[in-house]
Amino acid sequence: MKRERIVIVGGDAAGMSAASQVRRLLPEAEVIAFERTTHTSYALCGLPYLVAGLVTEPSRLVARTPEAHRRAGIDLRLRSEVTGLDLDRHEVVVWDAEARREYRQAFDRLVLATGARPRTLAVPGRDLHGIFTLHSLDDALALAAWLEQVRPRTAVVVGGGYVGIEVAEAFVARGLATTLVEGTSQVLPMLDADMAGLVQRALEEAGVRLVTGAPVVGFEARGGRIAAVVTTNGTFEGEVAVVGIGVEPNSELARDAGLELGDRNAIHVDERCRTSAPSVWAAGDCADAYHRILGRSVYFPLGTTANKQGRVCGLDLAGRPARFPGIVGTAITRFAETEIARTGLTEREARAAGFEVTVGSVRSTTRSGYFPGATWMTVKVVADARSGRLLGAQIVGGPGSGKRIDTVATALTAGMTLEEFIYLDLAYAPPFSPVWDPVVVAARKLAREV
Amino acid sequence: MKRERIVIVGGDAAGMSAASQVRRLLPEAEVIAFERTTHTSYALCGLPYLVAGLVTEPSRLVARTPEAHRRAGIDLRLRSEVTGLDLDRHEVVVWDAEARREYRQAFDRLVLATGARPRTLAVPGRDLHGIFTLHSLDDALALAAWLEQVRPRTAVVVGGGYVGIEVAEAFVARGLATTLVEGTSQVLPMLDADMAGLVQRALEEAGVRLVTGAPVVGFEARGGRIAAVVTTNGTFEGEVAVVGIGVEPNSELARDAGLELGDRNAIHVDERCRTSAPSVWAAGDCADAYHRILGRSVYFPLGTTANKQGRVCGLDLAGRPARFPGIVGTAITRFAETEIARTGLTEREARAAGFEVTVGSVRSTTRSGYFPGATWMTVKVVADARSGRLLGAQIVGGPGSGKRIDTVATALTAGMTLEEFIYLDLAYAPPFSPVWDPVVVAARKLAREV
Repeated sequence: MKRERIVIVGGDAAGMSAASQVRRLLPEAEVIAFERTTHTSYALCGLPYLVAGLVTEPSRLVARTPEAHRRAGIDLRLRSEVTGLDLDRHEVVVWDAEARREYRQAFDRLVLATGARPRTLAVPGRDLHGIFTLHSLDDALALAAWLEQVRPRTAVVVGGGYVGIEVAEAFVARGLATTLVEGTSQVLPMLDADMAGLVQRALEEAGVRLVTGAPVVGFEARGGRIAAVVTTNGTFEGEVAVVGIGVEPNSELARDAGLELGDRNAIHVDERCRTSAPSVWAAGDCADAYHRILGRSVYFPLGTTANKQGRVCGLDLAGRPARFPGIVGTAITRFAETEIARTGLTEREARAAGFEVTVGSVRSTTRSGYFPGATWMTVKVVADARSGRLLGAQIVGGPGSGKRIDTVATALTAGMTLEEFIYLDLAYAPPFSPVWDPVVVAARKLAREV
Repeated sequence: MKRERIVIVGGDAAGMSAASQVRRLLPEAEVIAFERTTHTSYALCGLPYLVAGLVTEPSRLVARTPEAHRRAGIDLRLRSEVTGLDLDRHEVVVWDAEARREYRQAFDRLVLATGARPRTLAVPGRDLHGIFTLHSLDDALALAAWLEQVRPRTAVVVGGGYVGIEVAEAFVARGLATTLVEGTSQVLPMLDADMAGLVQRALEEAGVRLVTGAPVVGFEARGGRIAAVVTTNGTFEGEVAVVGIGVEPNSELARDAGLELGDRNAIHVDERCRTSAPSVWAAGDCADAYHRILGRSVYFPLGTTANKQGRVCGLDLAGRPARFPGIVGTAITRFAETEIARTGLTEREARAAGFEVTVGSVRSTTRSGYFPGATWMTVKVVADARSGRLLGAQIVGGPGSGKRIDTVATALTAGMTLEEFIYLDLAYAPPFSPVWDPVVVAARKLAREV
């Protein structure tokens, strides 16, 4: 009998999670993984902290090295970019950058885990030296090297999303005079404006010059290097810049092969990570995911989802009964000591989705108010005004506040109402929480109104 | 029309929560509250931290003063102990310690919120000076005064429950050479032995002499004061001792009036906090609570439950449709930097309840392993072997580990299976968690086996 050949395109979280499951559960199969770079299975979310100097060894971001994957029996081919997909012949076209040659590789079943790429600005000067994105280990190493060699004193961050906020923390930590420019009216569009305002205050208190409503129209150069960013709202000096204006899925292979794409051109997958083509699976930042509150698939690329989808994908390839039940839109980050988290829908998102919403906010403390180390935290809860069902929550606050979003994420997954939520048996002792957890206090404000 | 008179017995969390709701929602009613001491609405759980010196102002533990309650319109009578309950005549018998007189007070409806009292040791020497319990603000103030005046250098903690662990932290923080004696074979019987072992190691590493399997048989005196504790397993020096061997409900009033008692003689209440007598409610540490995993009412006295029951009790008195759906057995504490939490059933409890269980433990980190400040945490998950339904979890670990128990508590409340639990959309970023949250990793180990 012919040995089954499973080909994985992409050597990061989703792809190698799938590869590892297949390797473990289908010892008879041949598992080939193509990776464009020389790195596998690294923590993309850790890159800003490498730039900050909080993580000093790049190798520590690597969860599993190429050698470890090979030892496990995966035929891992680095510097190998898949440039074409021929579904009729069940072959991929591979560009081997090392040998500088193209070849075709046959497969029985295929996993697309091609990830995402940073969106770019179509403005003059965008290719100047000193302008970086931060989406790969190589990006981070290049930026870190620039900071060491050029020793800039001023920096610009373009974009106030998660990456922008985290890079701003890194720049401030390195003592750079930092300007953050954001095209829309607020940072973190994944928060409501009132909650984003709390983050904006933290940025400004840390000395970041924050400029919102300022789309970038170009970069100015001095000596071939970036010197400033030009926006519709002024020109701001920066000897280094990071552009973090979101990502888009690497779904061209799938599109050109005729696979169904979904939200924002992500590859559409079902709960077993199967695409519209019978022998092709997809997982991670190139794919969409079912949003349990919205009731439809969306593009919401995150490392944690990539790992879960990769696992489900591998289990399904191996014939195990795994299902990825979807996401609820949970995300977390921080700016220095300020923690920022969200789950479900924001007020704005809930209204846009057609819900009649009721919202409640509360400012409380992370510990009992009298306990040393208690810091502020603000919680906003969004619920369906008719049924009282929880729809989402946002948290901005000091150390110890952010991970409380998990309680709401779990309650959302269970479809709880406010009334069920407020009587949850949550852990209380003075070093950990006020007697009523702040997430519950916010929900209580609403429960009275529903 | 006669004004309705609602009488509350007990001026702490449960009683005054109920009183406040009634006061707010039934402006026509007369609300009388009797409190034996001179304090109301204080944070009993904060007492060990007052002893530790972490909380320096006793007044900060008071959530609401007697004056505030009176301003709100509650007829609060301090130093007034209710000594009898006459259901036929709808009267309570009150001992006014200030005026040194007894009187009868009529009521239309009654709330029993009499709390609990510390269990005592029936051994020689138990009344010596220098032996304390820690169950009231007066207890804490007396102990703190003793520590200031006598300046002991050695201390004994009798009992390794929550209070014992917290007092040990306080004594170590004050520089006392501390011995903890525990009658059973482990500290924290609310944890399985393997998890309690982690706490025991932390105690010993902090310099606490830990003696288990050592029931106390007496105390030795020197100059009329405690000098040592005598156990079946040795005699240990201590110029001060705190006895924390659990509490029992103050349910004698209810019992003598013929009300139904439940687990461990707690007053049995339904989900509206109604007792077996038509016009009598009960809430807090004197009452039982429905345990959602066990499917029966148990005595599990905690401040957080007292607050919730008090609220429900008050809402029900006011005719609002409130229901307390019960507890799942969540609790949290710490010993210095070691956080300790549990929810649901331990392995031992689950087996005792007749479940066929499967368990999984994992040692992980609170943050991504490469992130500064990442510390260890061990999670143990217990599930039903047949259905895969989650039954409970325990956490012992460094700062940032304990409150993760809330995620499990919420999942337990929703009746989730391991398979549902492991795909929860929990918050991930390197400063907050490994990409798979440790509670999920523990559950994943089990999910493979079910």
